[in-house]
Amino acid sequence: MTAMNTQVRLASRPKGFPEESTFRFTTEPVPEPKDGQVVVKNRFLSLDPYMRGRMNDAKSYAPPVNVGDVMVGGTVGEVIASKNPAFAVGDKVVGAFGWQEYGVSDGRDLRKVDGKVPLSAYLGVVGMPGVTAYIGLFDIGEPKAGETVVVSAASGAVGSVVGQLAKLHGCRAVGIAGGKAKCDYVVHELGFDACVDYRAADFAQLLRAATPEGVDVSFENVGGPVMDAVLARLNNRARIPLCGLVSQYNATEPYGLKNAASLLSNRAKLQGFIVTDHLEQWPKALADLAQWVTEGKIRYHETVARGILDAPRAFLGMLRGENLGKQLVELT
Amino acid sequence: MTAMNTQVRLASRPKGFPEESTFRFTTEPVPEPKDGQVVVKNRFLSLDPYMRGRMNDAKSYAPPVNVGDVMVGGTVGEVIASKNPAFAVGDKVVGAFGWQEYGVSDGRDLRKVDGKVPLSAYLGVVGMPGVTAYIGLFDIGEPKAGETVVVSAASGAVGSVVGQLAKLHGCRAVGIAGGKAKCDYVVHELGFDACVDYRAADFAQLLRAATPEGVDVSFENVGGPVMDAVLARLNNRARIPLCGLVSQYNATEPYGLKNAASLLSNRAKLQGFIVTDHLEQWPKALADLAQWVTEGKIRYHETVARGILDAPRAFLGMLRGENLGKQLVELT
Repeated sequence: MTAMNTQVRLASRPKGFPEESTFRFTTEPVPEPKDGQVVVKNRFLSLDPYMRGRMNDAKSYAPPVNVGDVMVGGTVGEVIASKNPAFAVGDKVVGAFGWQEYGVSDGRDLRKVDGKVPLSAYLGVVGMPGVTAYIGLFDIGEPKAGETVVVSAASGAVGSVVGQLAKLHGCRAVGIAGGKAKCDYVVHELGFDACVDYRAADFAQLLRAATPEGVDVSFENVGGPVMDAVLARLNNRARIPLCGLVSQYNATEPYGLKNAASLLSNRAKLQGFIVTDHLEQWPKALADLAQWVTEGKIRYHETVARGILDAPRAFLGMLRGENLGKQLVELT
Repeated sequence: MTAMNTQVRLASRPKGFPEESTFRFTTEPVPEPKDGQVVVKNRFLSLDPYMRGRMNDAKSYAPPVNVGDVMVGGTVGEVIASKNPAFAVGDKVVGAFGWQEYGVSDGRDLRKVDGKVPLSAYLGVVGMPGVTAYIGLFDIGEPKAGETVVVSAASGAVGSVVGQLAKLHGCRAVGIAGGKAKCDYVVHELGFDACVDYRAADFAQLLRAATPEGVDVSFENVGGPVMDAVLARLNNRARIPLCGLVSQYNATEPYGLKNAASLLSNRAKLQGFIVTDHLEQWPKALADLAQWVTEGKIRYHETVARGILDAPRAFLGMLRGENLGKQLVELT
């Protein structure tokens, strides 16, 4: 093959907020597949908040990206060469090839997709973010019809699904998002019952007004002062799926959480989880999500950057909350 | 009857640390029992950290003590008059008569005890604190043999049982307590593997040395900086029974917990619990604890004040950590 593969690598470990210089580009020839291998041309790259964590050299559930390595990330694309009998040229596959235009795999980490939904959706609502919402809400949140479910980063890839699943389950869904445009989208496009702008000066009062019967499930994506405000609204035996702390990922000093006492006085359960711990639940979750998307019961929005060279800028924008819905890079 | 009943009432709601003037004394004649009632002469009153919470007018799992009311509390004593066929004069009963020398009850909230252990132990190791340790450790903590269990307030009524149960279960038990005397007691008398003095300047380093394989279960009694230090030592899938936050009960500004991110990166579970939510588990827990105490497998210590008039001083001393083991008032 003479095609060239452009890659984005970690140039240095950021302190605080990363910059475009945190990344560097390399270009290599796309290799031929060896026996058992397939070569995939990636069509979309997923950009997700967890990637910021992988840029730190810290103990976590997954090893960090080494300086000089290609950034990790989920991808969806098309098989362009195969020496693996399980895959044919033209197959559409979800993989984890990271921030690059092509990938080579022995197939074990690839999942063929059927095209019932648009290809990009397999990285979002019918992919890892959707399954994260599904498992976190249903397994850890255990919502009951009539309860109030609050979700932060409500317009994002995970939060937008959490609230819609809560509505399908008969709950009151209350989002928290940054700014009027996102809140309008969450209520008018996604059908949440309410959405509160965390940037508002009277955020705590607005949250109280939006949760008149308290909070039974808080799907936590951001941490920091937003989490503190929700903790103050917990009901007895509330459940908190702890999915992310995006407000803290770039902080050089962690925020001090003041309302932990609410977890005690309300006998609340807070549980951190990682969606890849629950692989046995993915097939049912993906099937349900695909069906609800095709039936129009779950809607989604994508913010799409064009070309691998734009990935760093798009990632930094996502960390600042500039995207609406799922942040993708289309690899043209 | 002509006997007089001296009582301790809440005189005013404390801001921050209570004082002796927070309480006031009253004396009333002990009433005759009506049909169905028993009169109990209390022998011991239990003093517990949760009582500080009841002095606040705040939403919690139990209603606050009203200003002017007798302070709530567990008691053990002897039936001295009965018009209830289920109780005879001389029966020993555990009740919740609060801070007073006598109590009248229809019997529904009384539990007869058999005297297999000393009467005072039914307020401690074979009572509410012991059951709190048992349910919190086994139900929420789910320890496995070989794991490391850390417990704060390790020399206290609950913590001392937690560590001994952990040892019986085959775990490494690490206590946290204030000062050398308490730590020596925890290791040499109770048989914990280690105990770390949270007042030490190098507390975090000492905790690290005492938990070389990290922390699998953290039985949390105190909150604040001690909790933060333990969060930094969590292992993957750690469990945190959240039993109390005694370091915060008198704080006018809550401590800001900085290491919540450890709950996410380690997929930890933190769960607040109240022992009275689990009444169905009390009989087995009490039977096990009584047996282990009589077999010498669980040891305990009591700090005993004499006379109801000394209850406020003893309570304030307990909040400052001056007691060793269970704090009681003997009502002579």
